[in-house]
Amino acid sequence: MVKQKYLDKAEVLIEALPYIQRFNRKIVVIKYGGSAMLDQELKANVIKDAVLLKLVGFKPIIVHGGGKEISRWVNKVGMEPRFVNGLRVTDKDTMEIAEMVLAKVNKELVTLVESLGVDAVGISGKDGGLLKCTKKLSNGEDIGYVGEIQEVNPRILHELLEQDFLPIIFPVGYDENYDSYNINADDAACAIAEAVHAEKLAFLSDIEGVYKDQNDPESLISELHIHEAEKLISDGYVGGGMIPKLKNCIDAIEHGVNRVHILDGRIPHSLLLEIFTNKGIGTAILREDGEKYYDEHA
Amino acid sequence: MVKQKYLDKAEVLIEALPYIQRFNRKIVVIKYGGSAMLDQELKANVIKDAVLLKLVGFKPIIVHGGGKEISRWVNKVGMEPRFVNGLRVTDKDTMEIAEMVLAKVNKELVTLVESLGVDAVGISGKDGGLLKCTKKLSNGEDIGYVGEIQEVNPRILHELLEQDFLPIIFPVGYDENYDSYNINADDAACAIAEAVHAEKLAFLSDIEGVYKDQNDPESLISELHIHEAEKLISDGYVGGGMIPKLKNCIDAIEHGVNRVHILDGRIPHSLLLEIFTNKGIGTAILREDGEKYYDEHA
Amino acid sequence: MVKQKYLDKAEVLIEALPYIQRFNRKIVVIKYGGSAMLDQELKANVIKDAVLLKLVGFKPIIVHGGGKEISRWVNKVGMEPRFVNGLRVTDKDTMEIAEMVLAKVNKELVTLVESLGVDAVGISGKDGGLLKCTKKLSNGEDIGYVGEIQEVNPRILHELLEQDFLPIIFPVGYDENYDSYNINADDAACAIAEAVHAEKLAFLSDIEGVYKDQNDPESLISELHIHEAEKLISDGYVGGGMIPKLKNCIDAIEHGVNRVHILDGRIPHSLLLEIFTNKGIGTAILREDGEKYYDEHA
Amino acid sequence: MVKQKYLDKAEVLIEALPYIQRFNRKIVVIKYGGSAMLDQELKANVIKDAVLLKLVGFKPIIVHGGGKEISRWVNKVGMEPRFVNGLRVTDKDTMEIAEMVLAKVNKELVTLVESLGVDAVGISGKDGGLLKCTKKLSNGEDIGYVGEIQEVNPRILHELLEQDFLPIIFPVGYDENYDSYNINADDAACAIAEAVHAEKLAFLSDIEGVYKDQNDPESLISELHIHEAEKLISDGYVGGGMIPKLKNCIDAIEHGVNRVHILDGRIPHSLLLEIFTNKGIGTAILREDGEKYYDEHA
Amino acid sequence: MVKQKYLDKAEVLIEALPYIQRFNRKIVVIKYGGSAMLDQELKANVIKDAVLLKLVGFKPIIVHGGGKEISRWVNKVGMEPRFVNGLRVTDKDTMEIAEMVLAKVNKELVTLVESLGVDAVGISGKDGGLLKCTKKLSNGEDIGYVGEIQEVNPRILHELLEQDFLPIIFPVGYDENYDSYNINADDAACAIAEAVHAEKLAFLSDIEGVYKDQNDPESLISELHIHEAEKLISDGYVGGGMIPKLKNCIDAIEHGVNRVHILDGRIPHSLLLEIFTNKGIGTAILREDGEKYYDEHA
Amino acid sequence: MVKQKYLDKAEVLIEALPYIQRFNRKIVVIKYGGSAMLDQELKANVIKDAVLLKLVGFKPIIVHGGGKEISRWVNKVGMEPRFVNGLRVTDKDTMEIAEMVLAKVNKELVTLVESLGVDAVGISGKDGGLLKCTKKLSNGEDIGYVGEIQEVNPRILHELLEQDFLPIIFPVGYDENYDSYNINADDAACAIAEAVHAEKLAFLSDIEGVYKDQNDPESLISELHIHEAEKLISDGYVGGGMIPKLKNCIDAIEHGVNRVHILDGRIPHSLLLEIFTNKGIGTAILREDGEKYYDEHA
Repeated sequence: MVKQKYLDKAEVLIEALPYIQRFNRKIVVIKYGGSAMLDQELKANVIKDAVLLKLVGFKPIIVHGGGKEISRWVNKVGMEPRFVNGLRVTDKDTMEIAEMVLAKVNKELVTLVESLGVDAVGISGKDGGLLKCTKKLSNGEDIGYVGEIQEVNPRILHELLEQDFLPIIFPVGYDENYDSYNINADDAACAIAEAVHAEKLAFLSDIEGVYKDQNDPESLISELHIHEAEKLISDGYVGGGMIPKLKNCIDAIEHGVNRVHILDGRIPHSLLLEIFTNKGIGTAILREDGEKYYDEHA
Repeated sequence: MVKQKYLDKAEVLIEALPYIQRFNRKIVVIKYGGSAMLDQELKANVIKDAVLLKLVGFKPIIVHGGGKEISRWVNKVGMEPRFVNGLRVTDKDTMEIAEMVLAKVNKELVTLVESLGVDAVGISGKDGGLLKCTKKLSNGEDIGYVGEIQEVNPRILHELLEQDFLPIIFPVGYDENYDSYNINADDAACAIAEAVHAEKLAFLSDIEGVYKDQNDPESLISELHIHEAEKLISDGYVGGGMIPKLKNCIDAIEHGVNRVHILDGRIPHSLLLEIFTNKGIGTAILREDGEKYYDEHA
Repeated sequence: MVKQKYLDKAEVLIEALPYIQRFNRKIVVIKYGGSAMLDQELKANVIKDAVLLKLVGFKPIIVHGGGKEISRWVNKVGMEPRFVNGLRVTDKDTMEIAEMVLAKVNKELVTLVESLGVDAVGISGKDGGLLKCTKKLSNGEDIGYVGEIQEVNPRILHELLEQDFLPIIFPVGYDENYDSYNINADDAACAIAEAVHAEKLAFLSDIEGVYKDQNDPESLISELHIHEAEKLISDGYVGGGMIPKLKNCIDAIEHGVNRVHILDGRIPHSLLLEIFTNKGIGTAILREDGEKYYDEHA
Repeated sequence: MVKQKYLDKAEVLIEALPYIQRFNRKIVVIKYGGSAMLDQELKANVIKDAVLLKLVGFKPIIVHGGGKEISRWVNKVGMEPRFVNGLRVTDKDTMEIAEMVLAKVNKELVTLVESLGVDAVGISGKDGGLLKCTKKLSNGEDIGYVGEIQEVNPRILHELLEQDFLPIIFPVGYDENYDSYNINADDAACAIAEAVHAEKLAFLSDIEGVYKDQNDPESLISELHIHEAEKLISDGYVGGGMIPKLKNCIDAIEHGVNRVHILDGRIPHSLLLEIFTNKGIGTAILREDGEKYYDEHA
Repeated sequence: MVKQKYLDKAEVLIEALPYIQRFNRKIVVIKYGGSAMLDQELKANVIKDAVLLKLVGFKPIIVHGGGKEISRWVNKVGMEPRFVNGLRVTDKDTMEIAEMVLAKVNKELVTLVESLGVDAVGISGKDGGLLKCTKKLSNGEDIGYVGEIQEVNPRILHELLEQDFLPIIFPVGYDENYDSYNINADDAACAIAEAVHAEKLAFLSDIEGVYKDQNDPESLISELHIHEAEKLISDGYVGGGMIPKLKNCIDAIEHGVNRVHILDGRIPHSLLLEIFTNKGIGTAILREDGEKYYDEHA
Repeated sequence: MVKQKYLDKAEVLIEALPYIQRFNRKIVVIKYGGSAMLDQELKANVIKDAVLLKLVGFKPIIVHGGGKEISRWVNKVGMEPRFVNGLRVTDKDTMEIAEMVLAKVNKELVTLVESLGVDAVGISGKDGGLLKCTKKLSNGEDIGYVGEIQEVNPRILHELLEQDFLPIIFPVGYDENYDSYNINADDAACAIAEAVHAEKLAFLSDIEGVYKDQNDPESLISELHIHEAEKLISDGYVGGGMIPKLKNCIDAIEHGVNRVHILDGRIPHSLLLEIFTNKGIGTAILREDGEKYYDEHA
């Protein structure tokens, strides 16, 4: 007789069937950042999830930041960090290092995907004119080469997806003078998801999701229609870094993305579980007419 | 925290990754017959397995027989079965009923696949001139409209696969006078697998596989190179219905199929397990230069 | 000198030129039923007509019923026919036999087309999800698995036509529970003609056409604009089986079919003559702005 | 009842079926010359034949000469014809007139085809570099701009056929100095048929075909294998203009054309009859392994 | 050291870069007529310009007249020219000669392009049904076969451009009775430019451009917005042959052409210079919202 | 009158015609390194040359090194360079910096191309698995992560070229353990040129070319057949860095590249001049059967 554990394995695969079918050939933009970038095992897991999605018929695009690695290199070359309103000033030199570090991280991710037998191509927002931006001010003050996206030219992404490559993007673009700008990775993921008409956008970071009560770890909300998300902001329920994240979610959905997921990248395979089970891992934001379908929280 | 059982699920999916990748866009011909055709749950499982294979990027083709259903209908219309050398004589009337019953079974399978959201197209060996045959004699004796395949015209299959349909075939063809013939489903699956250059051919029937010692249920052989399969026949180790089956396996491999699987259709998801784990469920026959990779028997 | 009879032959071919040109690459749906299905010679003629249309550049689709053959088999298996309001009750068993018989007829037609050197593919309304239906009541009463078409998914037809196959369809579909239903062949032909934007729809049955005066065989009407057809119904001129037929014709034209023909399948090559001469064989129904062009009745 | 004459018409169309099928999508090169170019009715018939062939699925290419029209214009401009060895000397001026006249004839033929609703494109051997040639000497003597084909570049023809145009060619080409040359239309038709791998090449001229006995009008030969054609030449049976014609036929077949027809263009629709009946109109030359299939002479 | 003259050459090529880039894959219709057709060197220059445009990525189409060559041939065949209101009466015979002469000129141009290694295809307005016309009256009087374009069917042009041929067109078309008509080459170029949505239309003739003051050779106007062009006409500044030319320019721009150039064909490479420098050679007419960008007059 | 200088410009463009035509749609691999990378003006010139080549129909691929910029950054982060046999030891840290610096340079070049209106995509040898390598030893000694190319997978390059992107490559690849390796840019350019079947390979560096007499600046050799190049090496005429460069040239030609150019990147537009004139700028190495066509040295 075949052992039970093997039969159980088959069942898990069969359970994935409706999810694979539902999102077949759909684009999923994965914003990858936070601690999951530092831990080698978590990193390997995220990449495996993305590769699995690709192999079962999704079209994943990874957008990543550089996180703490940039700071480490700024120090390494002995540069003096400057801050305005608590925000890092990105002068020419910092910009140069940021681009170099992001490119390095990019090639690491490309290599991880390649090691799993799938062809990845790592590009920046400059390649193929993907991201065009202008200078972003912080409360009206110039904090250097920090860019705000003005235009996304997704042609290179469509070509790469069409030819079965997995695109991995780091968010550096240029302005009309062809100067380099660092772009917030969440913003880039959001703008790209909109431009390619993604079915899903998933933010993998150190946030577990949205809580009804910040102090009650049991109160994580599995699904939110956008008006509920807007209400959470206007009622002052959420704060800090969650506000721009939620605003990005709402913006993406208003521009045609079907479902946006805030996921804890520290949980192994959170991306896979969110997509392949009807249990919520983090918080999903959905269109007003989107159907809630999580049974319970995983 | 996410519960362990969900993390385990993710692991099962991730383990499938190398198998999905290895056979991506490859054609798998599934001969489906035996008891697995009678039990509704087993039937549903086989179809789910085939659909999952399709959704994760394989190109499955199902070839099926009609098994005991034909006999049931022959009786139902009050016909007198005749036998020669223990073989059923297929006269015009029996042929007509066989074709009708096989068509009925075919549409059931089509409907099952459709119910899982995948488009199936059921055809016979007559459609698109798929199977051309001549009369097959039994020890030189004419036993009626039993056909031997002379030519496979796989154009219709390539078109259906190309357009993302799952083809389901019942083995009735015509000869040069356009008379109808019933064809052995194993032979049809084998000839089709060769004609479409299938990567794999899987026989799902009531046979568990090949045993070293017929009396020792522990002696199931997981993998056989073709010379080993040939030796089992010439040494008289195997007998009965296993000989033509093994000969079909050897023939398929000699004509370019990479791996042929003899699987017990009575084990739920045996097809999926054979393909997605490195445990043998039944017996795999492989090319002389094919690598054995099963760790152990499931 | 070349004999006159050969020159005459050439003239006939040349006369066909404007008709071939006018309908080049246009889809023609042929509903094939009635006596023309029982007589082997008439059957051969209809198939030859369809094959000729295909070879000269039309794109024919054949939709057929099973006619009296279903009744014959219901009797053969010793079933007791039941009737309600004079209509046959299609229980599960009858449905099963109907599907089997229709499939058998389908493969006969496929074989006839193949024997003329053209590749045909026979499918049902289940294949590729072609015909989705609901239960049709008869005066509010449940008469079993008799289906009313709700949705046509013509993808499989477009692919087959594109790849130069001649599709032959028997009208069995499924409902949302994937139960099988028998569908009236006229209804199926009509729905399919609309879904594939056919240029023409031809009903080949035992009806000679529409008469001005039912008792005057000389009063056959060659061409009717739809308002004339509607008037014939509302004025009570036509009755019996002609009413649903005319309604189908009107419906098809209102949904974009250019010209619908009611033809007597018992006249050899009536289809060919109707299309390739400017003499009316039966009755053509045309759009309000369609030009009448028959010179006289053939 | 439908009148017998209409049923007869249908029969003629049905009889064409196997011929249409046999040559579907095959290229037929038609050399059009002789008296059939002067008589307006014959001209219209030839063009109708070619258009019918196109509409029923063949891919005809017409190659034409200018015949007596060139002589007429040479006289018209008051030029003095010069002859060497009985052959016209083609000096620059004559060449210029020949090209102009051929172009005029070409556009007449284009217009005739267009008037039948089919798109024709008329080109010379210069367009797309179709025909490259060198000077052809007559018994070692220079007779001016008479070209011998050295190279055929059929790209333009394949593109026009692919896009469903009917190409009409007049045989003027250039040499390596880009000087213009007049080319024998039979030679051009032959070289083009070889270059496009035509199925058939038909010479429409004032010759009825090949006779066993030149004096016996009943002795026309319907079909000749190439060795028979060669023997007719070597045995001195045929002579005069027939020798180069037969040599062209043999050459075409040796370079891959399947069947070459010598047809009398003065018989209306001789091309159509030769292709659509199993009666020989003129003489067909076939490959050594080609099957003779004419029943009798028409 | 590399000599200065070579560095200068490189600079010229580099200066062409923005112009090449701006018009990449855009269609340019070149009306070629006037003295530039008679002088062999000018002719070679115009053709070289067109070929260069093709090779650097433009899609040129040449439309040409026959100019004085037609008159020469009318005389040559001893015909008596007739005039009405100072316009040549184009009777059947004149039409025939015009077509022949235009075809001859056409093949000369084709040969010139071919000699530069680019494949050209020369067609008339009859080929592929390119130009359909009606009779054009002169002040209400019938002056024979002079055509007014009613319809342009640009399919043949799109196919030729798609397949990388350079189309060369002479303006002879047919009317609904398939009679031949001579069409003014300016009108043809204009209608074709509109039908293929050309980016540019350039008239190469013996006109230097539009002058502010006809008597001041320094007063050539480099660029005119269409309202300025209209004003020049309504104010009576321009006269004679310039009025229909300007009207054609205005018409083309109103139908979607971006920029129309009136160029002096007698200046070598005027076409190239107009396109590849920011100096005006002749006069450019532009859309109301088109930007003027010539620095000065060349 | 048009000024002479403008006519001269036109002439230069026309002179480029045969060169554009000869290499239309051909791939040119440009190895870009040396001083030309440091001087902003020279850099702009090289990029303009590459963009011009692209716009006139070539398919350029740029392969670049990082040159002195890597050393600058090694120092910047305070690392201690180590040397073995005079070669830099590339430990993990150095490798990391090299990759970052090369990526930075890569994006600068991408941005320069983008600023000229052409879409560039910058990738490393890791992307799409372009360059797979093993460790390269120096005289048998391990000098760290210096790679030797084992396999080139040019799929990503073909896709980018097909979609009209200009690929820019920096030579970092991975080995079978997916460790990063720095690869000599000359080697990478050579291997890529071979893999994509480039027509041309151009090395732009600080070398003027090959001299007959190292001490005589007038003795630069314009063209060398490969046997001459081999003889120069075997006779000891050339030495130092020229030997591996010449060996790369010979290797490329033996693997199918048609012509390899050694060019002085310090001469503005040397690439353009070498390709668009028949004057040699540097030294061209050609196949044994390649025709020498430089008139003289520029």
